[in-house]
Amino acid sequence: MRLRLTFLFRQRFTSQIITTSLTGGLIAGYLFSKYKPIVHAETDKSIIIGERIPTLPTYSMADVAKHTTKENGYWLAFRDGVYDISSFVESHPGGKQILKTVEHYRIGNLPLGEREANENNQEEVIDLFQYDPERLNAIENFFIRSEKPYNAETKPSMLISSFLTPVEKFYIRNHMHVPFVNINQYKLEIGNEKSTYSLSYDDLKDKYQSYTITSALQCAGNRRNGMNNEQQGTVQGTQWYVGAIGNARWTGVKLSDVLKSFDLDKEGKHIQFFGLDCDTSQRCYGASIPIEKALNDDVLIAYKMNDEILTSDHGYPLRILVPGIVGARSVKWVNRIIVSDKEADSHWQKADYKVLPSSIKQPQQIDYDNVPAIQELNVQSAICYPASNDDGNKIKILSVKPNDDDIKNRRLTIKGYALSGGGRQIHNVQISLDHGKTWLQTELEQLAQPYMRAWSWTLWTYHIPFNDIPSKPFDIICRAMDTHTNSQPDTPLGIWNIRGLMNNAWHKISLQIDENFLKEKKFK
Amino acid sequence: MRLRLTFLFRQRFTSQIITTSLTGGLIAGYLFSKYKPIVHAETDKSIIIGERIPTLPTYSMADVAKHTTKENGYWLAFRDGVYDISSFVESHPGGKQILKTVEHYRIGNLPLGEREANENNQEEVIDLFQYDPERLNAIENFFIRSEKPYNAETKPSMLISSFLTPVEKFYIRNHMHVPFVNINQYKLEIGNEKSTYSLSYDDLKDKYQSYTITSALQCAGNRRNGMNNEQQGTVQGTQWYVGAIGNARWTGVKLSDVLKSFDLDKEGKHIQFFGLDCDTSQRCYGASIPIEKALNDDVLIAYKMNDEILTSDHGYPLRILVPGIVGARSVKWVNRIIVSDKEADSHWQKADYKVLPSSIKQPQQIDYDNVPAIQELNVQSAICYPASNDDGNKIKILSVKPNDDDIKNRRLTIKGYALSGGGRQIHNVQISLDHGKTWLQTELEQLAQPYMRAWSWTLWTYHIPFNDIPSKPFDIICRAMDTHTNSQPDTPLGIWNIRGLMNNAWHKISLQIDENFLKEKKFK
Repeated sequence: MRLRLTFLFRQRFTSQIITTSLTGGLIAGYLFSKYKPIVHAETDKSIIIGERIPTLPTYSMADVAKHTTKENGYWLAFRDGVYDISSFVESHPGGKQILKTVEHYRIGNLPLGEREANENNQEEVIDLFQYDPERLNAIENFFIRSEKPYNAETKPSMLISSFLTPVEKFYIRNHMHVPFVNINQYKLEIGNEKSTYSLSYDDLKDKYQSYTITSALQCAGNRRNGMNNEQQGTVQGTQWYVGAIGNARWTGVKLSDVLKSFDLDKEGKHIQFFGLDCDTSQRCYGASIPIEKALNDDVLIAYKMNDEILTSDHGYPLRILVPGIVGARSVKWVNRIIVSDKEADSHWQKADYKVLPSSIKQPQQIDYDNVPAIQELNVQSAICYPASNDDGNKIKILSVKPNDDDIKNRRLTIKGYALSGGGRQIHNVQISLDHGKTWLQTELEQLAQPYMRAWSWTLWTYHIPFNDIPSKPFDIICRAMDTHTNSQPDTPLGIWNIRGLMNNAWHKISLQIDENFLKEKKFK
Repeated sequence: MRLRLTFLFRQRFTSQIITTSLTGGLIAGYLFSKYKPIVHAETDKSIIIGERIPTLPTYSMADVAKHTTKENGYWLAFRDGVYDISSFVESHPGGKQILKTVEHYRIGNLPLGEREANENNQEEVIDLFQYDPERLNAIENFFIRSEKPYNAETKPSMLISSFLTPVEKFYIRNHMHVPFVNINQYKLEIGNEKSTYSLSYDDLKDKYQSYTITSALQCAGNRRNGMNNEQQGTVQGTQWYVGAIGNARWTGVKLSDVLKSFDLDKEGKHIQFFGLDCDTSQRCYGASIPIEKALNDDVLIAYKMNDEILTSDHGYPLRILVPGIVGARSVKWVNRIIVSDKEADSHWQKADYKVLPSSIKQPQQIDYDNVPAIQELNVQSAICYPASNDDGNKIKILSVKPNDDDIKNRRLTIKGYALSGGGRQIHNVQISLDHGKTWLQTELEQLAQPYMRAWSWTLWTYHIPFNDIPSKPFDIICRAMDTHTNSQPDTPLGIWNIRGLMNNAWHKISLQIDENFLKEKKFK
């Protein structure tokens, strides 16, 4: 199933244009395609556009033909479905627009037998991904794990080259396409069961105080490929190595300020976020966090990343930034915030980002409601330098030639990152060259951060003197501890879960000093 | 040094009585003893009472003899020291009182040469521990790790016999003696650098709303003896097995309410607590917590444990109860609360309860200021049943005869506890019979607790069917995960520290079914 999904998303489709000079037939030509199931990226569930929906009323092709003007509205038919796209046409008067969410406009079915008569009009599939940006130099900075949706992790050596990860090197984890946004029409809706308010992009920036925090973001699936092991099996999902993480300055307004301004901070247990990235059934990416986190911590509605307006891959115009929590809750392209007694009713909150018990070998085997949605990150560390340029799916012995600086100083430099969840500061990172028997204390680069507000990652460095390096292959292990003594498990054995989430076992690389370098006798 | 300490504290001394009909000579006879160093329990530092203090003035025996009345005050001499104990005598008018903290009353030295003339009067040492209560049935409930100070851990099988640990079975971790408290004179001082306020016991109970929470308490040294290993060595400190933990209902007033009532919640970074358990140099047990924890969470000034007035071993009349945090910060017999920019200036805050890097083999080797004081607990679990009655210093193979209920149901019941820090709920506890390759999900007994306020422990149970039990010895491992995916390390290798603190490696016991039981063929 996954293979087929990848194949479908990898196809390139021609962009489609809709103008206001429409007839039902013409629109149908632009909007739809030959019969092709669109497979939902996360659920593996096929959504077939225009399939008969028994609960809807029936309209004939003659009915459809009556709706081709502004006065009468614009209808169209596709396969067995009848659609009223008047509101779409009205809100997209000309220009390069695309109707990506056709099922949203569905009003009825054609009579049995009329589908065939209409079939010739449907030629093309919508390319949901046509607004995904061009990604320059992507293969220089990233290991690209999938094109559609776009999932790319930062190469390890790039990760530790600066304390703040440049935007163009920051990992990208999209669950669907990048949505098109017309900033003049963009509204952020905020509400609960009783009331809904809305803010324009400018309202939000003008009416609330801005804050800037430095925070890491890490995908719950980071280091997933390190969870695969022979004893317990291979885990399911994007096979991230250590690069689904980054550290940036985020500027925005405090979610708590916005909630308080509408008196929305008094009731409810969860704050739900939904993005503009919706599938063809108008199911949008969504997630939620507990209201305590929303009110007490530095949760932002962010509009800048590293002091620049957000790029489209990182959520332009607005994204949520929930520091200390798995990246999945930091919803991009956010346009709805809902205060509720319930968690967000989305696949990603209710099922996907949950650590299932080790005994579960198929995600279908479990009642998801009994498993909590992941919130806080656990304590994590990884070795990024030296690092192979491959994708780290398997531990390989890296052949390393020390760099000039190291040769001069007769040492081998080891670098990596560490991070804990919930605002807990990293206290120490130790490395071991003897499988954990003795540990060496690394030097930390970290920010002074308030108690329980250590959102930034920590970078660490250790210099191994040449004399301490074996000439044959050897392993380096790293492990971190936070200031509250949370630490990493030795192996994935105790944390293995079929979705491969939250792997924070000790990270290990295997090294040997480059043979040619040894021959040149610079080593001894 | 530690051996000698134990020896000294183990001696029994006769209780001493002071009455108001005193002369300097008489008082000296009751208060002091032959020359004996009193070794400070935690610092291993000898304090010699009556030793010459060069900075103090000199008073002759003739001077001392003038102070034997209420008008002139009560002085006395001991070795080279001169003491004014008027305030002590005044506040203890008759009755069974004892001057435990003699150096506090020190005002000067005798002239050189006069010490010998006075020496004959000094016969007895003060028994700091004379107000330690009688502990009935202690060896039934506890493994007693030291008598003076009294340190006793609950036997594993007792631990899991009820969700709330009965007071008489709750572990006791005293750093010094149990102080004598006259409740009519007891005052709780609360203040900062500018002002100090005080509350009587009744004031505190009458003026503030009472709250009850269920919270576990766990010593940072719990499971210390499991950290010893051949590769890394033996750790220093009381060799606790798995029983320095308990779970109780605590009733008291909120620390935050008290701080707010005196307007003490606006400044400062730490809340310091000091107890009435002071050594002979008036150094009292002390600890502190960050003000954020004090203001936001359910930190109590507690007066009841399991709905009964606190016992003297658990801090009568008042103790601090900091849920989610190592037991060391829940100061017993508290009589001073100080809001400050600094942590408590006590050995136990500044040095003792800190996790040193693994590379440190002697606590003296490190600058303690660079190591954070432990606050939140990490995620923990242990197997308590079946359990041997020995102290678990070494893993031994337990020979188990299933109980009647298990025989009837053809199963072996395994039970234990789990707990995480900072209010994070336990999500699952798994056990493994094959060294971590496959895991079995246990059944949890836990309270529904608000987000990030899961202060209670979780008990867990698993029934292994007889058919799944090998007839030869086998290991059972347990490990817990909290709702934020924090988990336990496989071994102590990555968390080893010379003080043996915060050991939360997987807990393992080795079992075999009792031979006689097998012979009776009830097993198959």
